[in-house]
Amino acid sequence: MVSTDERIAPKKKSSVFDLGTYLVQRKALVEEALDRSLSVVAPEKIYEAMRYSLLAGGKRLRPILCLATCELMGGTVDMAMPTACALEMIHTMSLIHDDLPAMDNDDYRRGKLTNHKVYGDDIAILAGDGLLAYAFEYTAVHTQNVPAQQVLQVIARLGHAVGAAGLVGGQVIDLESEGKSEISLETLHFIHTHKTGALLEACVASGAILAGADAVDLQRLSKYSKNIGLAFQIVDDILDITATQEELGKTAGKDLQAQKATFPSLLGLEQSRQEADRLIAEAIDALAPYGKQGETLRAIAQFITARKH
Amino acid sequence: MVSTDERIAPKKKSSVFDLGTYLVQRKALVEEALDRSLSVVAPEKIYEAMRYSLLAGGKRLRPILCLATCELMGGTVDMAMPTACALEMIHTMSLIHDDLPAMDNDDYRRGKLTNHKVYGDDIAILAGDGLLAYAFEYTAVHTQNVPAQQVLQVIARLGHAVGAAGLVGGQVIDLESEGKSEISLETLHFIHTHKTGALLEACVASGAILAGADAVDLQRLSKYSKNIGLAFQIVDDILDITATQEELGKTAGKDLQAQKATFPSLLGLEQSRQEADRLIAEAIDALAPYGKQGETLRAIAQFITARKH
Repeated sequence: MVSTDERIAPKKKSSVFDLGTYLVQRKALVEEALDRSLSVVAPEKIYEAMRYSLLAGGKRLRPILCLATCELMGGTVDMAMPTACALEMIHTMSLIHDDLPAMDNDDYRRGKLTNHKVYGDDIAILAGDGLLAYAFEYTAVHTQNVPAQQVLQVIARLGHAVGAAGLVGGQVIDLESEGKSEISLETLHFIHTHKTGALLEACVASGAILAGADAVDLQRLSKYSKNIGLAFQIVDDILDITATQEELGKTAGKDLQAQKATFPSLLGLEQSRQEADRLIAEAIDALAPYGKQGETLRAIAQFITARKH
Repeated sequence: MVSTDERIAPKKKSSVFDLGTYLVQRKALVEEALDRSLSVVAPEKIYEAMRYSLLAGGKRLRPILCLATCELMGGTVDMAMPTACALEMIHTMSLIHDDLPAMDNDDYRRGKLTNHKVYGDDIAILAGDGLLAYAFEYTAVHTQNVPAQQVLQVIARLGHAVGAAGLVGGQVIDLESEGKSEISLETLHFIHTHKTGALLEACVASGAILAGADAVDLQRLSKYSKNIGLAFQIVDDILDITATQEELGKTAGKDLQAQKATFPSLLGLEQSRQEADRLIAEAIDALAPYGKQGETLRAIAQFITARKH
């Protein structure tokens, strides 16, 4: 079998970096790895439900960030792919549970019916649990050519990012804030840095740890990932107002309808755009020490503010 | 600080093994470790919800099994305690999610209101997610004096036991089987070996792996844990019919009401008791090579059929 690293080698020969092509290629690689990661065995229904959401498309930005950071730090795509898949499993779990009637009660996600609309609330809860558990198992079993101590560090980061100190904690405050008009910018910041930021930071940190990055690099990359995480969420809030349902693949205008505090509702559209731009500029600054090597992460940061869905 | 191993040393001096005292002491040790494992920080509500169920009592049989197996294989209580706590976090998560209205819809658990009755369905779902993620983080961060490779093996086992190949898969078939009168003994066996058995097996296997057990020992202990796992569930089914709500701390007669197939409903009470006894006898046989060293696991196996709640 040709290793993943050999198959993607030609990209490095081109002198002008083309993010569009890069993202398409990487997304295909990730989709292939995700497809291989989870077979349907008995009991079929639960594996089908897990695969339904895991393979429902999306930008695959989290795994792509993990792979890119691992390469920037001198590692390979093969070293990081199991963790990259785990990050997407965790992200998918959070979407399945967030969409439940007991939570955000969403019928559409990525242009398809949400998991519970197809399989029922009970199976959707279990599919999320199954994906979360499998993320850790998959990382522990399939990561190769990385010292075990580093894999343990990655597992600790993944757990921290998705738990009460991260994604789950952000979702709790988000749920509490719904329908309240007096949400502060500080609370909104907490929600976003936890609900979206923590996992994006874990993508970058885990890629770096797998490659054996030192504390100085981890610090720089943490700055980068914190900034793009917050910018990503601000842009999400903006798109909820300005984009159509077709572009988003999910119900548009959901935040306004739910009277959710968002950056645009607190700062206005224009100032929100400026804040996202400022965060991205700072993220790019943090990559300065890597020169041309940092072009992939730089381009991904720029892509976040430019995206339309 | 006095290490856990020094504090429990006196037990070993007594010549007659007293399981009752042992279980009380070990339960206290585990409760203390669980209490320390999870502090309430912001956002308080989610940590309180996680602690509410994690510290709601119970027999703590899973962590106790993990600790006892680690000691049998020459390891220490301190080596296994983080994993023991993780096993209880995973078990608690499965109870919180199982009790949800979308699943078994239970109002009481361990004599207290279930998590969602106190905190709401949304927080209960998130508390389960938070506990599951934290179990892996906690094992990865806090396990000491064990080679990293063995900790990774333990994490892989935990993930496998709780995911679609274990607990989650068992729950799916259990939900599917509800209200069906024609459930086969084979299906019931699948439900029990997955819903209860897989995690109990992981308790024993992880304790052994942490202590560096070899393949022969793992094989013997797998036989032991498979048998006590199935016996445990058969006894649970029997108690659901014969015990009172006060003894169980949860709604009694639930299975009958839900028209659930159980061992007693398929085999009758008497033959179910015989089957449990047979399984326990076989489990005890598997411990023969350990002689007097195996007395703790032997006594725990006997306790499973003798228990009243």
